[in-house]
Order: sequence, then structure tokens, then C-alpha cells
Amino acid sequence: MESIGIVAAQRMHFPEPFALRSGASLAGYDLMVETYGTLNAERSNAVLVCHALNASHHVAGVYAGEPKNVGWWDNMVGPGKPLDTNRFFVIGVNNLGSCFGSTGPMSIDPATGKPYGARFPVVTVEDWVNTQARMADAFGIERFAAVMGGSLGGMQALAWSLMYPDRIGHCIVIASTPKLSAQNIAFNEVARSAILSDPDFHGGDYYAHDVKPRRGLRVARMIGHITYLSDDDMATKFGRALRRAADTVGDDYRFSFDVEFEVESYLRYQGDKFADYFDANTYLLITRALDYFDPAKDFDGDLTAALAHTRAQYLVASFSTDWRFAPTRSRELVKALLEHKRRVTYAEIDAPHGHDAFLLDDARYHNVVRAYYERIAEEVRA
Amino acid sequence: MESIGIVAAQRMHFPEPFALRSGASLAGYDLMVETYGTLNAERSNAVLVCHALNASHHVAGVYAGEPKNVGWWDNMVGPGKPLDTNRFFVIGVNNLGSCFGSTGPMSIDPATGKPYGARFPVVTVEDWVNTQARMADAFGIERFAAVMGGSLGGMQALAWSLMYPDRIGHCIVIASTPKLSAQNIAFNEVARSAILSDPDFHGGDYYAHDVKPRRGLRVARMIGHITYLSDDDMATKFGRALRRAADTVGDDYRFSFDVEFEVESYLRYQGDKFADYFDANTYLLITRALDYFDPAKDFDGDLTAALAHTRAQYLVASFSTDWRFAPTRSRELVKALLEHKRRVTYAEIDAPHGHDAFLLDDARYHNVVRAYYERIAEEVRA
Repeated sequence: MESIGIVAAQRMHFPEPFALRSGASLAGYDLMVETYGTLNAERSNAVLVCHALNASHHVAGVYAGEPKNVGWWDNMVGPGKPLDTNRFFVIGVNNLGSCFGSTGPMSIDPATGKPYGARFPVVTVEDWVNTQARMADAFGIERFAAVMGGSLGGMQALAWSLMYPDRIGHCIVIASTPKLSAQNIAFNEVARSAILSDPDFHGGDYYAHDVKPRRGLRVARMIGHITYLSDDDMATKFGRALRRAADTVGDDYRFSFDVEFEVESYLRYQGDKFADYFDANTYLLITRALDYFDPAKDFDGDLTAALAHTRAQYLVASFSTDWRFAPTRSRELVKALLEHKRRVTYAEIDAPHGHDAFLLDDARYHNVVRAYYERIAEEVRA
Repeated sequence: MESIGIVAAQRMHFPEPFALRSGASLAGYDLMVETYGTLNAERSNAVLVCHALNASHHVAGVYAGEPKNVGWWDNMVGPGKPLDTNRFFVIGVNNLGSCFGSTGPMSIDPATGKPYGARFPVVTVEDWVNTQARMADAFGIERFAAVMGGSLGGMQALAWSLMYPDRIGHCIVIASTPKLSAQNIAFNEVARSAILSDPDFHGGDYYAHDVKPRRGLRVARMIGHITYLSDDDMATKFGRALRRAADTVGDDYRFSFDVEFEVESYLRYQGDKFADYFDANTYLLITRALDYFDPAKDFDGDLTAALAHTRAQYLVASFSTDWRFAPTRSRELVKALLEHKRRVTYAEIDAPHGHDAFLLDDARYHNVVRAYYERIAEEVRA
């Protein structure tokens, strides 16, 4: 399958004031957006793809002159791919508060002429969905054929079906959960603590000091990576293999705190890379949005009650070795939907790669998504 | 059951040079030791209790004037307890490199007149066992009735049975593993990274700067705590409960990065407490000793081959919800021992408390240990 090829992002400006769930508001904001495929005359073939923690609007294809900067879900979205851009008009959008061009903590606050930094308001999944609905209005899209996402992206899809039941045909929730567990929150809290306690954080206003809290971001990302991979996958990929230069003699330990095992080298590399490109304030915001997501909160924890007004059809998928958002969490959602007799397709994919599986090119997984979109395509005559 | 009551620690000095597995050596060293019960005339009723990451020689009882400073395994060791000090002579010893009085990074290096700091050599489980054997010599104990430990303590017990097969009658390995997995090493590496990258670490020589890398230690301990508890146990203890002052109105979120959920409050408290009392260099040393432990390493990864010369009898116990050192790891050890037709008792305890279960007062678990010690007592006529 070929990639969609060269794509380009666009900046959309929304000048109207925007009230957030926290009570704060923004005078206006920008969203970075990419689209693939063609909106049909009925405007019935639009699909919104929502991103997870560290991703962006760059879902598929490459930018001109940047052949290595491939979209994060390029194996899923493109011509002839499971979400087929020959049939669907696909939108990727960078969430408010993120660090890839949409308005966020790095942006200039028009009220002060300085970066928002710590003054950027806490955002929630529901806030993102509201900004995405405004964006849909700007495209003249009354109703999405589908809203789709993995992990935190799946939460946005689920929130769409709750907040805008008339504007979503199908809700596709992959490797996600209707709420974080205490353990999930705990991992987020440790990551945030690493950032908040980094002396280079400067209370969130590190931009003015021309530094960034690299050490904290690095540790945060290392923790994250452990939770994205399964125990078995780590064992297969790294085991206890030692990291050795080619000219090393013998295989004894080196008895130091430098990199000794391959898994340490991998984590340090991932941590360093992330600290280069990601913004610490955005990391705080997005992990908090994860913590706060809990549609059942206003229904005394009763997820079934929370889903009463949904009207979408659902595809829910989980992965057997995902211990971050384990299959039991998806089943909880499926069960609550079935109590309302919603039409739900549930796929529990036997895959070794833990939470990261939702980003990987697994034939069984992709076939499920492909078949589901074929059904949607028939409905919308895409 | 009453506690053993008032106990006192003693400092034992070992003036002879000590060669470590790394090739480094110490001119001499001290070990902090506590004993409970009475060594019988045949010196056949001695039991060595080995500690895990953050514990010490203070296994049971309290110190005079410090009624809240209870030994870490007081529910296990004492008169009438599973390891009954009316019958056994029990020794607790603080490991070399630790920070509770035995020679470690905080100690003065006689060669420089300054704390060892980063120059303290990397220690291994095998080094600890060698120091414990010297200590046994000093007590005139030729052979331990049992060596016992949980987690990292269990590794020491296992290493005793490999290194001194004639000096150990029973080897009691609880909530442990014959080697760390890639995921285990990964968690240790993230914790070490938090410490190593703390600006107050000063390359390990922070004592001279009159600071300690509190931020790093705090994050390290928070990560550790997540791995000590089970997902379910965290859900039961904390769930998504919000941390609220008594006079708070309503139950909405506060939309900040301050403590919002109970689990965050718990982790921050544990992290702060640990940063107060623990030494960062010791944390590095002990997590590295965990990483390095792998008796099968010199046998091409063949654990069965590594166990060929053992002569002890074994009690191996694991806990159903321990995901740090899961029951499968204990079963791997049991299987390898059974291939040599060693006498092995294996107990897999159904307990909700994750890895921490080995420290808790669980009736089924304690009954297994009690019954096992009754068998040992008959053998040694204790």
C-alpha cells in the first residue's frame, strides 16, 4: 500500500471567545489541521481522527522536503488503507494546549504579549471535543461519518458520542478506557512530579529563561514508555541483553550506573529524543486531561447511565497484552453500551505489543478496522 | 502475639580487606547487626534474615525510647511468631552499601578522610552473601538452619544456597525471582535516571555540598511504590477518590496540577518521607545489585545448570497479584530445583496486595511459613 504522499498542514483561526470546562476562557485560538481525501457533495464522508498524548494533526503522509516525517497513523490512513482516503475525507487536528502549532502554553498570550506558560488553562477531553465541533462547523460538516482514536484519542471519540450524539455516525474507540484507574493516575503523577520538580521548570515559565525542563521530561517519557510496552514484549525485544561496543571483550558486567543493559539504552534514547521535541507544559496538560476524563463522574460512577443519550454505533478494540488500558476496560464500555442495545462491534486482538499495538501494522487489527469502514462506506455511499 | 520488645543493634567491625565481585576492594568495613533469641549450644538454630531495598538490620522489636520505630518484619519474627524467637536465634544484618550504619557511600573512606560518595564500589548480591558468611564466622555459626528473605532478600537467600551449599539447611525465598526482567530493569533505570539527573546529586558527592538529591529520590520512590502495589489494590485503596479538605464544597475537579486525587497525595507523601531518610547513592547501589543478580548468567541462562550444586531444602512463596515479581518467576525457580530433585515447598498465596504482600500480616501466608519453621525446629531440636 502506498502512502498518501505529500501533505500540508493548515492553520485555522477561531476568533470567538472559548469557555473551558474549568471556568477559564480563551479570547480565541488556532488549531493546526490536516485533511486527506475529498469531502463529497453530501458532506457525509468526513472522519475525524483524534490523537493521543504526543501526536498531532500530522496523521498520514509526509511534508514536502521531509520524507522521514511520516504521519503517526500512516499505516491506518491513506489510499487503500483501512481508513481509505479514496473514499473518506479524513481530518487530523492538533489539540488545544498541544505543542505542534495549535494554541498552547508556548503560544503568545495576547493579554500579556508573552507565552502563556503556566497561565494556559487546564484543558479537558470535553474542551477538545468542543473545539473540534467548531472546526467541523468551519468545514461545513454537520455530522461525521466516524470519529476515531486510540488511547486518549479514543476518549475523544467516546466524548463525541456523548456530547454531540447527532453529529457522529460511528464511534471508533481503540486501546482506550472510559476512565483512568488509580494506577494510571499514579504513573501520570510521577511523570508530572519529575517535570514540576525540575529546577529548569521555573513554575512553567521556563521559556523566559531560555531553558526547558529536559531532565523531568526525559524521566516522564521513560516512565511512559514502560507502560506502552508489554512485559513480554520488553523481554523479547531486550531481555537482559547487555549493551556492548563491538570491540568489547568478554561478557561480564561493567559495574557502573552507565548504560549496561539494552533496555536502558532504549529508554535513555527515547527520553532524550522526547525532551528535544516536546513541551513540558503540554505534557502536564495532556496527562491531566487523561486523569480527568470520566463521563460517569456526574452519574455517581454509573457508566451505563452516562451513556443513555448516545446514538452512535461503536467499534471498540483492545489488545490482549495492553496493561495500560487492558481489555477489561474496553469490555466495561462495551457492556454499558449493550445495556442500551447500542450496535457495538468489539474486537479483542491477541497481540504481543502492549498499548503501543494500536499504532502498529497488525493484520488482524487492521482487517477489523477495514471491514468496519467498508460498512460505513456503504452507509454513506463513500 | 506480643512483639519481641526492646532490642539493640550492634556494630561489627571486619578489618580484613574485602574483594568485591567487580574487582574493587575495601580495606575493611562495618556491619550493623541485630539478633533475637538465643543461639543453642550446638549453634544449630541460627536463622539469617536478609533485607530488601529500603530495610535494614532492624527486623523486629523496637529500640529503647523509640516505640514507633518497629522492625520491618515484626509481624514475622518474634516470640510465638512464624519465625519464633523462642526457638531460633535470628540475625538481621544491614547490607554493605546501605545507609543504616553499615559501611556505605555515606561512610568515611579511610584513604581520603571524606565520605566515599560515588567512589563506593558497586556491590552485588554475591558480595553481600560473602560479608554475611564472614559475619556468621564471627558468631561461630558454621551452618544456618535457614536463610530467609523477601524480594531482594530472597535473592540473597537463593545466593546463599548456591555459594555456601554446606552452610545453609533451608532456603526461604519469598516474593522473589531468579533474575530481573527487562521491565524490572527499566523501572530501576528510570528511578536511577531521576537521581542521576538531579542537579543536587553532584556526581554522587552531594555530602560535600550539604544537600541531597531529594527531588530525584522522591520520584524514584514514587515509581517504586507503584510497582509494589497491585493495580486492584490501588483501585480499592484509592480508586478515583478526590483529595479534599473538610470544608470543600461540591465535588468538581480543581483543574490544577496540585494534588487532586488521593493516590497522588499518597505517592507524594511516600516520596517525601523516603527522601528524608534514605541515601541516594545507596538507592543506586541497591537497584544495581537487583539488576545484576542472575545466577544463570554464567550458565548460558540455564537456571537448572546454575542450581546443580545446591544442597539446601527450599520454601518458595509468591503472591497472586505481585506483578513486580510474579508467581511465574517463582515457579521457574521451583521447576529448576525440582529437576535436581531438591526438596521444595511452594506456596502461591492468593492475596490482593501485590509485591508488598510479603511484608503484610496475611494468615495463610504466615501459616505456611510457621509450619515450615516447625519442620526446621524439629530437625534442629530448637
